Amino acid sequence: MTIKIGLVGAGFIGLLHARNLSASPLFELTVVAEPNEATANRVAQETGARVVADWTELVDDPLLDAVLLASPAELHADQVVAFADAGKHILCEKPLALNLEDADRAVAAAQEAGVLLQVDFNRRLDPHHAVLRTAVEEGRVGAPTIVNIISRDPGLPGPDYRRGPGKMFMDTTIHDFDMARFLAGSEITEVSALSAATIDELAREADDADTTVVALRFANGALGIIDNSRQARYGYDQRAEVLGTEGMATCGNVQDTVTAVATASGFASPALPTFFPERYAESFRLAVERFAASIVDGAPLPSDGRDGRAAIAVALAAETSRRERRVVSL
Amino acid sequence: MTIKIGLVGAGFIGLLHARNLSASPLFELTVVAEPNEATANRVAQETGARVVADWTELVDDPLLDAVLLASPAELHADQVVAFADAGKHILCEKPLALNLEDADRAVAAAQEAGVLLQVDFNRRLDPHHAVLRTAVEEGRVGAPTIVNIISRDPGLPGPDYRRGPGKMFMDTTIHDFDMARFLAGSEITEVSALSAATIDELAREADDADTTVVALRFANGALGIIDNSRQARYGYDQRAEVLGTEGMATCGNVQDTVTAVATASGFASPALPTFFPERYAESFRLAVERFAASIVDGAPLPSDGRDGRAAIAVALAAETSRRERRVVSL
Amino acid sequence: MTIKIGLVGAGFIGLLHARNLSASPLFELTVVAEPNEATANRVAQETGARVVADWTELVDDPLLDAVLLASPAELHADQVVAFADAGKHILCEKPLALNLEDADRAVAAAQEAGVLLQVDFNRRLDPHHAVLRTAVEEGRVGAPTIVNIISRDPGLPGPDYRRGPGKMFMDTTIHDFDMARFLAGSEITEVSALSAATIDELAREADDADTTVVALRFANGALGIIDNSRQARYGYDQRAEVLGTEGMATCGNVQDTVTAVATASGFASPALPTFFPERYAESFRLAVERFAASIVDGAPLPSDGRDGRAAIAVALAAETSRRERRVVSL
Amino acid sequence: MTIKIGLVGAGFIGLLHARNLSASPLFELTVVAEPNEATANRVAQETGARVVADWTELVDDPLLDAVLLASPAELHADQVVAFADAGKHILCEKPLALNLEDADRAVAAAQEAGVLLQVDFNRRLDPHHAVLRTAVEEGRVGAPTIVNIISRDPGLPGPDYRRGPGKMFMDTTIHDFDMARFLAGSEITEVSALSAATIDELAREADDADTTVVALRFANGALGIIDNSRQARYGYDQRAEVLGTEGMATCGNVQDTVTAVATASGFASPALPTFFPERYAESFRLAVERFAASIVDGAPLPSDGRDGRAAIAVALAAETSRRERRVVSL
Repeated sequence: MTIKIGLVGAGFIGLLHARNLSASPLFELTVVAEPNEATANRVAQETGARVVADWTELVDDPLLDAVLLASPAELHADQVVAFADAGKHILCEKPLALNLEDADRAVAAAQEAGVLLQVDFNRRLDPHHAVLRTAVEEGRVGAPTIVNIISRDPGLPGPDYRRGPGKMFMDTTIHDFDMARFLAGSEITEVSALSAATIDELAREADDADTTVVALRFANGALGIIDNSRQARYGYDQRAEVLGTEGMATCGNVQDTVTAVATASGFASPALPTFFPERYAESFRLAVERFAASIVDGAPLPSDGRDGRAAIAVALAAETSRRERRVVSL
Repeated sequence: MTIKIGLVGAGFIGLLHARNLSASPLFELTVVAEPNEATANRVAQETGARVVADWTELVDDPLLDAVLLASPAELHADQVVAFADAGKHILCEKPLALNLEDADRAVAAAQEAGVLLQVDFNRRLDPHHAVLRTAVEEGRVGAPTIVNIISRDPGLPGPDYRRGPGKMFMDTTIHDFDMARFLAGSEITEVSALSAATIDELAREADDADTTVVALRFANGALGIIDNSRQARYGYDQRAEVLGTEGMATCGNVQDTVTAVATASGFASPALPTFFPERYAESFRLAVERFAASIVDGAPLPSDGRDGRAAIAVALAAETSRRERRVVSL
Repeated sequence: MTIKIGLVGAGFIGLLHARNLSASPLFELTVVAEPNEATANRVAQETGARVVADWTELVDDPLLDAVLLASPAELHADQVVAFADAGKHILCEKPLALNLEDADRAVAAAQEAGVLLQVDFNRRLDPHHAVLRTAVEEGRVGAPTIVNIISRDPGLPGPDYRRGPGKMFMDTTIHDFDMARFLAGSEITEVSALSAATIDELAREADDADTTVVALRFANGALGIIDNSRQARYGYDQRAEVLGTEGMATCGNVQDTVTAVATASGFASPALPTFFPERYAESFRLAVERFAASIVDGAPLPSDGRDGRAAIAVALAAETSRRERRVVSL
Repeated sequence: MTIKIGLVGAGFIGLLHARNLSASPLFELTVVAEPNEATANRVAQETGARVVADWTELVDDPLLDAVLLASPAELHADQVVAFADAGKHILCEKPLALNLEDADRAVAAAQEAGVLLQVDFNRRLDPHHAVLRTAVEEGRVGAPTIVNIISRDPGLPGPDYRRGPGKMFMDTTIHDFDMARFLAGSEITEVSALSAATIDELAREADDADTTVVALRFANGALGIIDNSRQARYGYDQRAEVLGTEGMATCGNVQDTVTAVATASGFASPALPTFFPERYAESFRLAVERFAASIVDGAPLPSDGRDGRAAIAVALAAETSRRERRVVSL
C-alpha cells in the first residue's frame, strides 16, 4: 500500500519533507498546497505533485490518506481540526499550536476522529539520540538525575524571520524541551528560564531572545538544564547527556570530518559546518517513515499530539518564567 | 626570604596544604593549631611543625608572617579578624564565611590592617581553566554569551559530613560560582536555582541537596549555567566552557590515562578515577605559591576577600532562589 | 547527455556499482553481463537493465558509450583491450590485472584507442582522505617524511574467497599501496614486506596471508608504513596520516555514533560497525560521477591505468620481498 | 634501609636521575663521578653529593651499595664489569653497550658477581604503557598480531650530538625495539628497516638517519611496525597499540591540556609541548624506585641485562638490514 499524502506549505521545511516523501516508496505525494506561486512551483517541478494555492482544497480530497503540515504555526490548529474531521492522518510540524487552547483543540479533534496526529519532533529519531534514550530505558545509567542539553545554532536567522516575545522558546528551544522529556522519560514539572538578546538587535527590539538558559525539574525527580544560543560561530552544536545514579550517557557532535592538521601552532580541525537539515537529515527521513509505519501497521507514533501539547506548555511556561522572574510549575 | 606561616586546622584540606607548604622553599611551616590530637600529630610527624590545640595561641606569635586557615568555615570570619588585627597575612579556605555580615567583617578587617587576604578559590589556578580564562581575556571567543560549567563529585560525602539547608551551594557549588565569575570576567547579577536530594538520604533529611542546576545572569549580559551533582559513578567530572560572540573555549576532563581497549563489544576506557586533591593538585600548589608572591613581591592575589564575599552572596541567593522558587537579584 | 553504460560482472561490487549508476542522472545502465543467472537477475530486477550471460556481447553494442568492469580480476586485461578497441570508455575495478604484462597491455590499448581508462581506487575520493591529500598538496605539513596507513578488515573473508600466494597484497593491500602513492604524491621506489597467516587457516594452507606490515620508500625521499590485518574484532579500522617537515595531517576512523556510556566501569562506546561498502559509500558514488565528468567534460580521471599499473607493481614487489626476505626496488 | 648510591655521569640524563635519587627516601646519593667540572658542580650544588672526576674512584668505595651509570654508552660495558666485580648493584642507562660482545661481557659479569643489573628502559614503567601491557597479559586483546609504535621526537638534536651509522637505531629506536618486545611479550626474530636523512644535514653527512620505518616479526608469530622521526613540529608524539585476535589496546598521546578554542576557522588545540623528561617523568622516577625494590625486597627488575642485550641485537640488525637492504634474522 502506498499512502497518498498532501503537503500543506512548501517553504524551507516543506521542501525538505517533499523530497523525503518523493524518495520514499511508502508515499505518493499527490498535491501541494502553497499560496506563494514561486515556492509552489519549485516543489512541483522537483516532485511532479499537483499544486493548489488554498489548503482547504485538500480537506475533502477523497484521494488523500494523509497530510503533512509545514505551514505557518498559527494555522496548524485549524488545519489539524479540519483534516482530522475529514478523516486524514496528520503529520504536523512543530509547534502544534501557539497556545494551549489551540493545542487541546487539535489533539481532541484527532482523537475524536480516530486519525493519527504525529508532531514532528524529529530529533528523537536521530540515531545518536536514540542511543541515549535506549541507555536510559535499559537502566544503564540508573535513575536519571540530570538531563543536560546544549543546542546552539550556527548563526542568527535572517531579517525575514518573525521575532517576538517567547518566539525563541516556541520555535527553537521547543525541540530541546521535547528532547528533555524524551531523554528523561518523564514530564517537566518546573521551569525557570533566563534569556538575553545581546547579539541580535532585531530580537532585542521585538522582546525576543538570542540566548537562553533554562533549568528544569521532572516528575521523576531529575533536574534538567538547557543551553541555547542562536549564534555559535564554530557551527551547529548539538550535544546531550543524561546523568543517572549509575552513570552517564552522552552524545557529542557529529563531525563532518575526522581529520586534523598538527603543526608547531597546534592541532587544527574543521568547524561543525552544517545546520539542522544536514545534521538531522536521517531523522527527518525517519519521521515520515515512522508516520507511514503507524498508518500501515499501527506502530506507535514517535511523538504525538500530547507530546506536541506538552512542549508548548513548557515553552509558554519558560516565557512566563523569564517575564515574571520566577520558577513556573506545570 | 622565607615566609613563616602557621596552619589553622589540620583536617583533610589542612593536611594537603601542610604538605605543599612543607615542600615549598618559599614557606616555613612553624606551627599548626588543631584541637584534635590525632589529627594534629599526623601533620606534626609529616612536617616537623610544632602543634598547639588552640588557634588563638598563634594570633600574637611574633614569629609568624602569615596563617593559612583550614578550619571549620564558621570560625573563618573571627579568625580572619583576629589575625588581620595582629598583622598577619591570611590565606583562607573557602567559604570565607557563612553569611555576608561575617564576610564583610573579615574583608574590612584585612583592609584596615593592610594585610593580604587570599580566599582559596584554587580552581582558578588550574592550568586548564587558566587557558579558558586567557582565551576570554584575549578576546578569542568575542564577548561571552554563555558560561557553561559541569561539576560532579564522584560520590556522596560520608555520614560525618554536616549537611543542612544551603550547604551544597555554600560548600560545593561555591567553587562553580567563583569559576563562573572568573570565566565570565563579570559579576553575577541574577540567580535561579533548582535542587534535589534524591540520592543522598541524609541530605534529604537535612533539607540539603545532592543535585543542583543553576541559571545565572552576569553584569556583562552573558548567561550562565551550572550542572552540579554529588554522585557521578564514572568519576570526578569537571568541565567548563565559555561561548562568546566569536566562538567557544572549552575545557574537558583531565584523563588519568590515554589508553583504550577495543573489542567486538566496542571501545572501553577507564573511568575518571580521582577526586579534587588529584585533579586540582597543581592548583593547590600554585595557591600557596601565589600567596607567597603577593607577600614578597606585591603580586596581585589570584582571588581575594571580595571574591570570597561575592561567591557567598551567590550561594545565599541560590538558596533563597531554591526556597522561594524565584530568580534572585544580587 | 546521459552516458549509456554496460556493467560487466554483477557480484557484490557489481551490484554496489549498479545501484550507484541507476541512482545517478548522469548514467543510463542499459545492460549487465553476468554468467550467473541468479546474480544477474538480482541486478536486473533492481535496475531494470537488460541481462546477458556473455560479456563479449557488449563489445560491439553500438548503444554503449562506456563499460564498468566488476568481473573477476583475471579477465580485466582482456576485457579492457576488447572494449578499448571497440571505443568504449572503461571504469575498471581494482586490480587492473594480475601481472605487469597484462596491465601494460590494457593501458596501451586504452591509450591507442583514445578511450578513458579509470581504475577504481575509490578511497582517493573519500572526503576525509581528500582533506589529507589537500593538506599535503597545499604544503601545510611541509615535505612529506612518513606516510602511515592502518587498514584492518573487520573479519576474515568467507571460505569461497580464493586465497593464494600474494593475494592479500593484490586484493587488499593494493588499496593501501595506492593510498600511499596518492598521499605522498610520489612513486614508491622500495618495498619491504613481512606477512603472517596466523589467524586464517585457509590463508596459511594457500601460502596467503592474513596480516602484513610493509615498509616503503618514495621517490621524493619520504618513507611509508602499512599495517594491514584481515581481522580487527572491533570493526573496520581505516586510519591514515602524513608526517612532513612542518607537521602532520591525520585521518581517524569515521564513527558510526558519537555516543558513550560512562559508569563505574569506565567509558564505553560502540565498535566500528561497518565495512567498506558503508565506510566508502560516498567514494564509490563519487567514482562513477568523476568517470562521467571525464567523459563529458574532459575532467582529469581520479586514478587511471598508470595508477592501476603502479599499484600492481608494488603488490608484486611486496610478494617478492616477503618471499625473498629482502627490500625490492621498483 | 637507605641505599647508598653513586652516580656516574652528570649530564642531562644524569642530572635527571640525580634529582629523582635525591627526592627519594629510598636512596642516599653520596657521590657523583663526572669529569666535566661545571657539569659536576651543578649536580653537587643541587644534591649535596660529593663529586669526583674519575669514575674508577667509586669502584672500591666501601660505602656504596649501588651505582647508576649515566655515562657515555661506550663506557657502559667496562663500568658494568668493574662495578659488578666490586659487588655493586647497577642501574645502567640504555644502551647497555654498543656491540653484542660488550653487552655479553656486562651481563656475564653481573651474573657471576650476583649483583643486580637493571637497564633503564624506563618507558615500560610509564603508567599508560603499563595499561597496554596488562591488557595483553590478561588476554583482553587475544593473541597479539600487530604491535604498532609511533615515536617521533619534536626536533633535531643539537650539533653537539654525535651522529654516525646506526646511531638513530642504537640511541633512539632502541626504546621502541624494547617497547615492541615488552608489548608483544615475545622476542623479535626478524627486522627490516628503511631509513632516510632528508631533514638533518649532519645526519646525512654522518651516514646516520633522521627518519626510519621498521618492520618486525616476533617469535610468537606477531608482526610489528615502528614509525620513527626526529622531527615532529607539533611535539613529542608517542603512540603505541597492540592488535590481537580479539581486539586492540591503544595508547594515545598524553595531552598537556584538555582545552580547545573553536571559532569560524575551526577547532584549535595546543601542540604536544614536552619532550621525554616531561612525558616520561613518572617512569624515570619509577625506574629508580623499582631498582630499590629489587635491591631491598628481591622484586623482579623491570628490565635487566638480557633486555639490554636483546634491544642492542635488534638495533644492530636494523642497521644491517638498512645497509644490506634485506630482512635480517635474529
